[in-house]
Amino acid sequence: MSEEVEKMRHSLSHVLAAAVRELYPTTTFGIGPAIENGFYYDIDFGDTKVSDADLAKIEKKMRGIITRKCEMVRRESSREEALEWARENGQRLKTELIEELPEDATITFYDLKDPRTGEVLFTDLCKGPHIDDLSKVGAFQLARVAGAYWRGDEKREMLTRIYGVAFETQEELDEYLARQEEAKKRDHRKLGKELDLFCFSDLVGAGLPLFTPRGTVLREEMSELSLGLRGQAGFKKVWTPHITKVDLYKASGHYAKFGDELFMVHSQVNGEEFALKPMNCPHHAQIFASRPRTYKEMPVRYMEATTDYRDEKTGELGGLSRVRSLTQDDSHVFCRKDQIKQEIQTLVGIVRKLYTTVGMNKLRARLSYRDSSDKYLGDPALWEMAQAQIKEAAIENGLDYFEQEGEAAFYGPKIDFMAEDAIGREHQVATVQLDFVQPERFGLEFVNEKGEKERPVMIHHATLGSIERFLSVFIEHTGGWFPLWCAPEQVRILTVNDQVDEYVSEIEAVLSGMELDEPVRHNVLRFEMDLSNDSLGKKIRRATEMKIPVVLIVGPKDAEAKEVSVRLRDKEEKVKLADLAEYLQKLNASDF
Amino acid sequence: MSEEVEKMRHSLSHVLAAAVRELYPTTTFGIGPAIENGFYYDIDFGDTKVSDADLAKIEKKMRGIITRKCEMVRRESSREEALEWARENGQRLKTELIEELPEDATITFYDLKDPRTGEVLFTDLCKGPHIDDLSKVGAFQLARVAGAYWRGDEKREMLTRIYGVAFETQEELDEYLARQEEAKKRDHRKLGKELDLFCFSDLVGAGLPLFTPRGTVLREEMSELSLGLRGQAGFKKVWTPHITKVDLYKASGHYAKFGDELFMVHSQVNGEEFALKPMNCPHHAQIFASRPRTYKEMPVRYMEATTDYRDEKTGELGGLSRVRSLTQDDSHVFCRKDQIKQEIQTLVGIVRKLYTTVGMNKLRARLSYRDSSDKYLGDPALWEMAQAQIKEAAIENGLDYFEQEGEAAFYGPKIDFMAEDAIGREHQVATVQLDFVQPERFGLEFVNEKGEKERPVMIHHATLGSIERFLSVFIEHTGGWFPLWCAPEQVRILTVNDQVDEYVSEIEAVLSGMELDEPVRHNVLRFEMDLSNDSLGKKIRRATEMKIPVVLIVGPKDAEAKEVSVRLRDKEEKVKLADLAEYLQKLNASDF
Repeated sequence: MSEEVEKMRHSLSHVLAAAVRELYPTTTFGIGPAIENGFYYDIDFGDTKVSDADLAKIEKKMRGIITRKCEMVRRESSREEALEWARENGQRLKTELIEELPEDATITFYDLKDPRTGEVLFTDLCKGPHIDDLSKVGAFQLARVAGAYWRGDEKREMLTRIYGVAFETQEELDEYLARQEEAKKRDHRKLGKELDLFCFSDLVGAGLPLFTPRGTVLREEMSELSLGLRGQAGFKKVWTPHITKVDLYKASGHYAKFGDELFMVHSQVNGEEFALKPMNCPHHAQIFASRPRTYKEMPVRYMEATTDYRDEKTGELGGLSRVRSLTQDDSHVFCRKDQIKQEIQTLVGIVRKLYTTVGMNKLRARLSYRDSSDKYLGDPALWEMAQAQIKEAAIENGLDYFEQEGEAAFYGPKIDFMAEDAIGREHQVATVQLDFVQPERFGLEFVNEKGEKERPVMIHHATLGSIERFLSVFIEHTGGWFPLWCAPEQVRILTVNDQVDEYVSEIEAVLSGMELDEPVRHNVLRFEMDLSNDSLGKKIRRATEMKIPVVLIVGPKDAEAKEVSVRLRDKEEKVKLADLAEYLQKLNASDF
Repeated sequence: MSEEVEKMRHSLSHVLAAAVRELYPTTTFGIGPAIENGFYYDIDFGDTKVSDADLAKIEKKMRGIITRKCEMVRRESSREEALEWARENGQRLKTELIEELPEDATITFYDLKDPRTGEVLFTDLCKGPHIDDLSKVGAFQLARVAGAYWRGDEKREMLTRIYGVAFETQEELDEYLARQEEAKKRDHRKLGKELDLFCFSDLVGAGLPLFTPRGTVLREEMSELSLGLRGQAGFKKVWTPHITKVDLYKASGHYAKFGDELFMVHSQVNGEEFALKPMNCPHHAQIFASRPRTYKEMPVRYMEATTDYRDEKTGELGGLSRVRSLTQDDSHVFCRKDQIKQEIQTLVGIVRKLYTTVGMNKLRARLSYRDSSDKYLGDPALWEMAQAQIKEAAIENGLDYFEQEGEAAFYGPKIDFMAEDAIGREHQVATVQLDFVQPERFGLEFVNEKGEKERPVMIHHATLGSIERFLSVFIEHTGGWFPLWCAPEQVRILTVNDQVDEYVSEIEAVLSGMELDEPVRHNVLRFEMDLSNDSLGKKIRRATEMKIPVVLIVGPKDAEAKEVSVRLRDKEEKVKLADLAEYLQKLNASDF
């Protein structure tokens, strides 16, 4: 957000606090920053319970304050004065903030002042900056009330957070609210239930989705697409268990960094300790290391669709966006230094192909390099070479990319891909990461042409990333109207009455065993029949609710003419039974 | 084993002890029973180290004793006498055994007595029975020395176990030893390494195999075969996470029975406790319960190829036979009572088809019923009906079956399948288990035609069982010469020299993308080329070592004649390039 917009939003949070102070004089204030799309303020309302129902009242009061065209006046203060102010006003949370400021910090207050009367409506400890004239605060709306731990620490008290949305113009605000409305309709948690894709069980636990038959089709088609593209590029499937001794992560170096975030596994039989794997690279490195390698077989490329476990806080879990069981379409390349560029080219090609296929072709790439600090491991010359190769690969692939120094992982430079969805939201998706450190730590090697032992470079890659998270994006991207190839139920046959049952068998014969060959191979058609005695209207409604991409309606006249009424999402047409298979193939091909 | 054979083997263990006593006078004896194929004795040799190298000496001494045609003389003894005997002879392990005998037990000793001299060579506390005349002890051989905890308890002292093999006749013994020799050659641990199928890593841990690309092909083909057969029968794939709150097992009732065998999972972030799933039924029941069900959709059939974790003792882990990570091809049917027979018929059909396909068509089935004890849960009338349906299904499917009362699980009757491998060993494989209890415990229900809520019956089924364990059997069954359809590398092209490189491209064009359609669909041909400068002999040797089913040898004459020399395991023949695809299809079809 621009500096100007940030100032507007930040000022609105002060207006919010001023309004709250007028309505609830005994409140204690935490912090109130500008954020993406708006602002919030964390407030302790004491015993008073404030909910969404109170927002209209608070918002009205805010607009009243803004009408007075107040100024935001900055003034400096000594530490003693500031602490005194906090004490006098019962602002114990501000006291804590003041006490943590460095000795030499300039402490500032902002007064919200009516220029005509000189009255100070509200004073807040704040480093600013703010806009001078509150009438230029832009368009805003209070959004919702939520709970938030003071300073984000779940061991501290729970405050009430009031969120507002705010933009420079009313037009921008309206646009944002409409997008929010659309996003709500597309909410994958809602669609997941309506379309019977996945469920949760209190007995199993939060963040651990169970996939129904329909949702499993979606998972598998996505996984197949990803495996297929990588398979064509020479990746071979491997399989590794979900647990390991922690020794593996001690050797890889992960334990020192992330050891306290692991799900620990305990054997009651003999007390052995394991961990659930949060990633697959060390396992794959063990397979590489399981026998001697020569230059002839390099690069060695492994892929696996396997479930990793990450210990997310319960509060952060929601639908498929953030889960504890995340299935990665993970790949690892072990290659020579002079093969890096070619391998990156291949991986970038796979990413572009996949996201084009799923209809998300607005793709941006961030190339993350090292900076001059000493936090990066590995030979600087190797870094330089690899970064140059990454950039060349990006240019040669025509990627929409930008570069960021200092954003690399400590073990190597990387490319992160961001894809835009149908309602303009950008999601971080695929990644390609070079790794100069793990091969070293595991002592990986191959024998080169000269008969010498040489260290390979490792490349980590995920195309979909986590399948669960990808699905949360994809379900919202499509709004549940999945393209034909991956729809759990692709075709449903509805009958007008039971006179056509015989003709339906003919249709069934055409569809049975039929395969859609793109974008995944040998995709056997998934069709169902609704031959119930319900009215046609009811049957159509049911099929529409389930967002079946192709509905075939069959009445006596269709039987006579040997045709079917095809009802798609946006049109309806008659198709001869003899042409139906070809029609479906073409319909499928139009999706990517 | 027959009672007579048991007596012979048991007597041999006394002879073994007598021989050891003569050679090592200060030994302490544990127990020495008859076992399958022979006998053993657990012995404390004190500080003396006894190894396989000592077996010849001991065996010679045993044969010496047998030549004396000793008798085995039984005599009863009081507890005091027995304890006195143990004390005098320094047999502290026997003391422990005597002390544990019930108050009213008849305590007996057996004296190994030379009938001519009257000399007692050896006395052992033993309840018998034994053969009278040691000259009729059959054919035997000492096999090996191993360590064994006293009474199988790893907290007790480690004893030395001497194993012997023993049969009624020399012929049987020779046959057994030859089979053992063959089994050793086929040992899947050895072949797994030689054929680069799987590996273990000390960093990952025992019982946690990692599958290389070749082994993963084998896993996946087997899994595909199983999923394909079940998919045709109406099973739908679902997906469930590998961990769960233990609440799930408390609700299912598993926790009370197996709670202390679970791998417990601990969250370091917030202290939550989970368990790794050792089975999938409760997860699948949660999916069934995730929305209302009606009679119209019954039976509901779920399948999943998913990895379960079982906490096996480290000492019990070896290769793939017993692993901690076991991937089950698990199925669950939720059906009405009157659908049980049809569902069992279907499952029995799937089992027969699968084992025929993998070349293990000698299949026996054990039908396990309840007995009259009160350990079984659920309505006895339902049990009766279900058992009758199981038997009918077995008869109508022409199964080779036998019935066993009292062998049912507490929750329902079941069928266990045993398959015989190529060297005559029988392995427990597939299972079909009815379950009247879990639907009750989870409160599963569907609405029947009358609009009433009805409880479904659950059927558990695994076709391969655990894929890892199945592979341990299958690798040994085939000796690593896998049938074409599932061989990791199906075809290898070897060139006589580089003059034929152009012709090889033509062969490649024929093989590329070619598919074998049975027994799994769309099995894209996996072929490699060995175009190295090594001699043809060396290339052939390499291909044979890797047990590649089809080797195509290409020389200049073949190029001229547009043909290839096909080298199979047991023959070699010329095939026209134009006929090669059809030839491979036929070759494949001949395997099942």
